[in-house]
Amino acid sequence: MAEPARTNAESASTEAIARLQALLGDRLSTAEAVRDQHGRDQTWNAAGLPDAVAFVETTEEVQAIVQVCAETRTPVIAYGTGTSLEGHITAPFGGISVDFSRMDRVLQVNVQDLDCRVQPGLTRKALNEHLRDTGLFFPIDPGADASIGGMAATRASGTNAVRYGTMRDNVINLTAVMANGEVIRTARRARKSSAGYDLTRLLVGSEGTLGIITEITLKLYGIPESIAAGVCPFATLDGACQAVIETIQLGIPVARIELLDADQIRLCNAYSNLGLSEVPTLFLEFHGTEAGTKKQSELFAEIAAANGGGAFAWATHQEDRNRLWQARHDVFWAGRAYMPGKAALSTDVCVPISRLAECVTETKRDLEEHGLFGPIVGHVGDGNFHVLVCCDMTDSADVKAVKAFTERLAERALAMDGTCTGEHGVGRGKMRLLEAEHGPALEIMRQIKRALDPLNILNPGKIVAF
Amino acid sequence: MAEPARTNAESASTEAIARLQALLGDRLSTAEAVRDQHGRDQTWNAAGLPDAVAFVETTEEVQAIVQVCAETRTPVIAYGTGTSLEGHITAPFGGISVDFSRMDRVLQVNVQDLDCRVQPGLTRKALNEHLRDTGLFFPIDPGADASIGGMAATRASGTNAVRYGTMRDNVINLTAVMANGEVIRTARRARKSSAGYDLTRLLVGSEGTLGIITEITLKLYGIPESIAAGVCPFATLDGACQAVIETIQLGIPVARIELLDADQIRLCNAYSNLGLSEVPTLFLEFHGTEAGTKKQSELFAEIAAANGGGAFAWATHQEDRNRLWQARHDVFWAGRAYMPGKAALSTDVCVPISRLAECVTETKRDLEEHGLFGPIVGHVGDGNFHVLVCCDMTDSADVKAVKAFTERLAERALAMDGTCTGEHGVGRGKMRLLEAEHGPALEIMRQIKRALDPLNILNPGKIVAF
Repeated sequence: MAEPARTNAESASTEAIARLQALLGDRLSTAEAVRDQHGRDQTWNAAGLPDAVAFVETTEEVQAIVQVCAETRTPVIAYGTGTSLEGHITAPFGGISVDFSRMDRVLQVNVQDLDCRVQPGLTRKALNEHLRDTGLFFPIDPGADASIGGMAATRASGTNAVRYGTMRDNVINLTAVMANGEVIRTARRARKSSAGYDLTRLLVGSEGTLGIITEITLKLYGIPESIAAGVCPFATLDGACQAVIETIQLGIPVARIELLDADQIRLCNAYSNLGLSEVPTLFLEFHGTEAGTKKQSELFAEIAAANGGGAFAWATHQEDRNRLWQARHDVFWAGRAYMPGKAALSTDVCVPISRLAECVTETKRDLEEHGLFGPIVGHVGDGNFHVLVCCDMTDSADVKAVKAFTERLAERALAMDGTCTGEHGVGRGKMRLLEAEHGPALEIMRQIKRALDPLNILNPGKIVAF
Repeated sequence: MAEPARTNAESASTEAIARLQALLGDRLSTAEAVRDQHGRDQTWNAAGLPDAVAFVETTEEVQAIVQVCAETRTPVIAYGTGTSLEGHITAPFGGISVDFSRMDRVLQVNVQDLDCRVQPGLTRKALNEHLRDTGLFFPIDPGADASIGGMAATRASGTNAVRYGTMRDNVINLTAVMANGEVIRTARRARKSSAGYDLTRLLVGSEGTLGIITEITLKLYGIPESIAAGVCPFATLDGACQAVIETIQLGIPVARIELLDADQIRLCNAYSNLGLSEVPTLFLEFHGTEAGTKKQSELFAEIAAANGGGAFAWATHQEDRNRLWQARHDVFWAGRAYMPGKAALSTDVCVPISRLAECVTETKRDLEEHGLFGPIVGHVGDGNFHVLVCCDMTDSADVKAVKAFTERLAERALAMDGTCTGEHGVGRGKMRLLEAEHGPALEIMRQIKRALDPLNILNPGKIVAF
């Protein structure tokens, strides 16, 4: 089937823009700078500018936009903070970018039920700021201060996923505008249900291709009585990976267990002034009671020692802990700062944890063999790691070499029964890998897309082509 | 749209049976007794006999059956142990019941990754028996010794869900035969992925209406170092519910927290010889380290005391613990034994936990006001509870009164932002409630059904009518 969105895209958009200007007034922008900011991300994925950007304030406005866009066959692309990494927010066929920055409120906090309802433009840090006095927190933390809507749409996770799960596990229900113009709520607020198909999980990770999320109900957690964090250096990358594997297998309920290789530590030292030994290092955090975190960290220390780990350095004060995790979250920027004039491209594979050491080690060897620079950092408790590959985008040979590396990395993960993306999503960047990952299941995804968005107006050209 | 499966159902089945007999030989049965056993459950949902029962041994055989059934427009109904409670396994339009009892093997256990791959006919108890020497276990435990395939298909949970989640959270991937005759695997074995639509979660809970599950990869857990269990009596039902609410809110990682009202304790005493005081009672279990379970139970004891709870009676020996949980799992049979000649019909609602005490108390009052007998038992840590309503199926006035009660119960739960089914599923029994629960989201479910099963051959007439 051809891309319906391409047909008469320009005139379609012209009509849609005229109708939406009547609806939104100056909250619909066609300014070049605004369109440009909404049409490109931090990656090598091609920019694609929307024809206009709508700064929405209500679910009803989103519904009206989708209805106009359905009638005029105009693409609609949801936009949170623009921090996604696979071209999710680009508009390859033009259309309307729906910017949620004005829909950033916490609508309800149910302390008794450990949940809250928020608007999609709220960022994860703003949510936790809002929750500060309740004794509750929301644990999912991708590197960027992303919007909750974007995090739901890309099935984001982060450093706490090993303990608290990903967005898949922490969204109770969603309100969404579907391509048929209807506003649905995917589930009730009960913690579990067997009442029909799991539309919540279908929309989480669908990247705006099946519906546009306008409200999210999230699980919250009590701030632990005790939080213990620190870093542990290792003689070898393999030893660090083995320590992670054994920690998970022993069922130690570690809240965070992050691997940074020697190169990555060097970058973090430079960018965040950490002063750590430049060797493979695990960043850890334990949540629980005072006695519980003590016990957990003792068990981990034994495992570390048996795998060539050095002394655990505690970050006892909250400021030290914050500095540590801020440095961890800043690895992308540390990479960019270290490679001036070059791009730092983040890969994202995830494998069964038994294959983690092998996958990381082979990947490191691959980088060396091909003369590429790529620090490694990962949510290794989930088997998920990123290579931050340095690439001179002005040098076509370098671009080619880096692209070939990312292909080999994905193939390596797939061969180990892993996935081509643990948390970044598909967008445009990883579409070509889905056939190898899913085989005939990809056609089922296409059938779902065709059924729920027959006009192909919702973020067309992402995840599944039509 | 009419039920395509009804059209020429008889001749369609005749052709299908002839072709499948050639394929399966005496593993295709048309015997009345076999068809009868596969066409009715323990509930008041109408029986519906399949035209034949296929005892399959491989995914390829299931694929061949689906292909024949697609060509002949014959319904295909997956059958595990027949313990579902909403008419899921009945064949209202005839067709082929696919019995998985011969596909009951554990195919792989990955101790390092804490996962395993099994066939759908394996029961949960057989799986745990198989795992005994690995130090691992699978926690999901609906009352019956159900098949893993059936548990996945109905999004089952049970007493451990408050700690370990439901089947939604514990299926890593599925192999399934889809209506188009393709065998798909829904995901890789990595613990998390953002690679496209979550087909795993779409099939979990789809009750055989979107695909037929032929393999399941499950998460496993280490058997806890320490397990502490016991019972705690309460002066009032409300006090018991409040204690549950506070336990969850405090984040005590209780593994099981089950409520049995005074009537239910009376039944359990009679059936399982428990010798407990006949008052509202919580059954609890704590998992962790020795120190951890001690701390958890101390915290709970404080909460209980503040809510009219009596002394916690520990089940220290494993046999006592087993007897306790066996009694809990036998409540359905205890109910049937207590009501000779009558049916014990199990309801299943789930509400946000803040509304639990109110919902249980109002329900108890409703039973009293209408002169109905209905012991209450529930996975109250999730806000999920069952009323085991006594019904004389030969007395149409009694049937009418019980049906009216179940309607009021569902409406009460929905009014509290709860669901009409926490874990039993929809089948035929709860279809009429989905409109009230889901509104326009139900049409999205129908669109998915039509897209993935355009001939309506997969368990037709369940969840969504077409």
